[in-house]
Amino acid sequence: MAAPLRLGLAGLGTVGIGVVKIVQAHADLIAARAGRPIVITAVSARDRTRNRDADLSGYAWEADPVALARRDDIDVFIEVMGGSEGAARLATEAAIASGKDVVTANKALLAHHGHALALSAEAAGRVIRFEAAVAGGIPVIKALTEGLAGNAMRRVMGVMNGTCNYILTRMQSAGLPYDVVFEEARQLGYLEADPNLDVGGIDAGHKLSLLAAIAFGTKVSFNAVELEGIGAISIDDIRHAADMGFRIKLLGVAQMTGRGLEQRMTPCLVPDSHPLGQLQGGTNMVVLEGDSVGQIVLRGPGAGMGPTASAVMGDVIDLARGVRMPTFGVPATRLATPIAAHTATPAPWYLRMVLLDKPGALAKIATALGEAGISIDRMRQYGHEGAQAPVLIVTHKATRDDINHAMGLFAATGVLVGQPVALRIEEV
Amino acid sequence: MAAPLRLGLAGLGTVGIGVVKIVQAHADLIAARAGRPIVITAVSARDRTRNRDADLSGYAWEADPVALARRDDIDVFIEVMGGSEGAARLATEAAIASGKDVVTANKALLAHHGHALALSAEAAGRVIRFEAAVAGGIPVIKALTEGLAGNAMRRVMGVMNGTCNYILTRMQSAGLPYDVVFEEARQLGYLEADPNLDVGGIDAGHKLSLLAAIAFGTKVSFNAVELEGIGAISIDDIRHAADMGFRIKLLGVAQMTGRGLEQRMTPCLVPDSHPLGQLQGGTNMVVLEGDSVGQIVLRGPGAGMGPTASAVMGDVIDLARGVRMPTFGVPATRLATPIAAHTATPAPWYLRMVLLDKPGALAKIATALGEAGISIDRMRQYGHEGAQAPVLIVTHKATRDDINHAMGLFAATGVLVGQPVALRIEEV
Repeated sequence: MAAPLRLGLAGLGTVGIGVVKIVQAHADLIAARAGRPIVITAVSARDRTRNRDADLSGYAWEADPVALARRDDIDVFIEVMGGSEGAARLATEAAIASGKDVVTANKALLAHHGHALALSAEAAGRVIRFEAAVAGGIPVIKALTEGLAGNAMRRVMGVMNGTCNYILTRMQSAGLPYDVVFEEARQLGYLEADPNLDVGGIDAGHKLSLLAAIAFGTKVSFNAVELEGIGAISIDDIRHAADMGFRIKLLGVAQMTGRGLEQRMTPCLVPDSHPLGQLQGGTNMVVLEGDSVGQIVLRGPGAGMGPTASAVMGDVIDLARGVRMPTFGVPATRLATPIAAHTATPAPWYLRMVLLDKPGALAKIATALGEAGISIDRMRQYGHEGAQAPVLIVTHKATRDDINHAMGLFAATGVLVGQPVALRIEEV
Repeated sequence: MAAPLRLGLAGLGTVGIGVVKIVQAHADLIAARAGRPIVITAVSARDRTRNRDADLSGYAWEADPVALARRDDIDVFIEVMGGSEGAARLATEAAIASGKDVVTANKALLAHHGHALALSAEAAGRVIRFEAAVAGGIPVIKALTEGLAGNAMRRVMGVMNGTCNYILTRMQSAGLPYDVVFEEARQLGYLEADPNLDVGGIDAGHKLSLLAAIAFGTKVSFNAVELEGIGAISIDDIRHAADMGFRIKLLGVAQMTGRGLEQRMTPCLVPDSHPLGQLQGGTNMVVLEGDSVGQIVLRGPGAGMGPTASAVMGDVIDLARGVRMPTFGVPATRLATPIAAHTATPAPWYLRMVLLDKPGALAKIATALGEAGISIDRMRQYGHEGAQAPVLIVTHKATRDDINHAMGLFAATGVLVGQPVALRIEEV
């Protein structure tokens, strides 16, 4: 059997300890599958004294992850610290510069610096793998980069933030408003220290930008992702959507259009009969559409110790087996600079707004839609609330630009109470 | 860029022509991803004169697939002819013996000869890949062998015969009996020439045996798969199951138990809230359960030109990229001989039978269950049909042996009309 593959593990939080547990529990199984033993040589974390529920006594300790990355006795640098800058970035760069392959769970780092890191890794003959960065335990990077490599990809979609999906499905099942469920999620420990990373769609947007780079052979362009969080979704929206046979999901969509690369991470309506609509709680789902394969749906846990460590170890075992390919599936030097095209694909829209209950209010809204070139599929004024009239509209196909135009015209009517909600109805 | 990878393609039916179309349509895309061009050098099929809707003029023609397999100008032999014996087997053996890697869509060949082929390929330093053999376009072999390689697998399940799932869901949605829908499926061309390959569960059983070998590191043992087809499922069973919140699926289950390897491909009840229960029509679904990752669900088209060719090309591109690993994930010499344990895992059962409508009939059945050590969760005698009384029973957990014992006792009561139906309720 070949020499062991030696790992340096930077980060001993949930995911890092999960990796330690798998390496220790399944040494024989992994050696049989990888064709060689896989061992941890050295580890690094901020606080050495913390009790971590794992025996780390056999591993060298480095206080500095950069020093870990540079050690001569590791082959693969595993980065599970997180953060797009600082130690994670410096250590990853150091690992590449000192001839190590890299396995990372860090979506933020790759969303911001993935192209530069891929260029330097490939120039140095090193490999970066990041299965754990997208959709936790679901082997979606592998499915897209390898399994579907014979396809021109048409569209990639995903529900990739379990916290947002937990909040939206809990609002629906318990009939609770956003603020209450948000607070529940916080107390359950589901939210990042900065909750906007979750509910603002940023974390999921990072993941989408990585999938888009692979699917369409373009440089990672997270800054071009149209981001909209779930904070404006009300229990009313969820109920109205359900009445029409839809669910509201924070849905990522990436597709190449005639006008450029469309990347969106926004709350959308999806049919309750589609697996995306049926997805409950913290589970993740990714939909991959290729010209030959059609639609593939992958579902599984998007976070947690075991699932994320499973993804890290899949990458590590690939490296042990000698599997080597460019970070984003084609050489980084060949990745195209995408033209951002947020609004290219028209769709029906769900609009909900509250109008002053006075004669002609609804007509003004209908007129504004007409002026914006948007035709109405369904329109309904329902149960009055004092002097206010809630109105629900489903449009025929329109672009985001059309909708934005209409929203401006709505505001000018003087009959609106508060802000309208506009949610795309995604055709899945 | 490296030298082209040269393919010899044996079989120019639906899948073979699908491969030709992808190679021709996406030459540049594939070369970018594979790091080298992928070209077809030579092809083989039974009838050269048939019109095939593809330009084959650039390829050498071999009437004999064995001769194709032996050509010096191919690197990879693609076998999409089908059949567990004859030309497919001989040509695959010839390819390995003459130093070619093999990509095959042939589940029957591998279910019967996979271990021997893997042994000879690995002894010769060659690779066999077979993504297209299981669940069509879904990259499930890759997910299991590579993506989840850090997991001890707990269970693998799947709905892997689209024709059976079409028949069962169509019976339910249209309220039509089995025979009528079977005939519809035949006329739609969904059935194999020998329909028992589909409705008898053999084709799906082949696929399950391949997944089990990878998941549990055992020799392929198709002959140990407990097979039961869908021919005995009535529209009544489907309706009763639905009333209780279940769907009936031809479900494959493989798991390692304390008593050995359990492999079943049988009609089961699964909850309608699980993705398996929600699966409609000809779509396939595979569920992979690992100790770290938990439950991963993969869904997609299980057959057809595009999806199957997509799977073949994923394997081919892997080979072009230099990805090489043992056929079943660990060296074939290390695959264990499994002990077959069909009946190891107890489950609740759905039983439906028709009794003679006379005093004491139901009591005799209840007594028989008690004698077999099976306790009753629910029991219902419903709408009489003349002198016959249909009875529905849901048991508490029992093994297949217990149920078989009870069935023997039922027969001895003298109150049965026809054969009882016994379907396992799978906990998913």
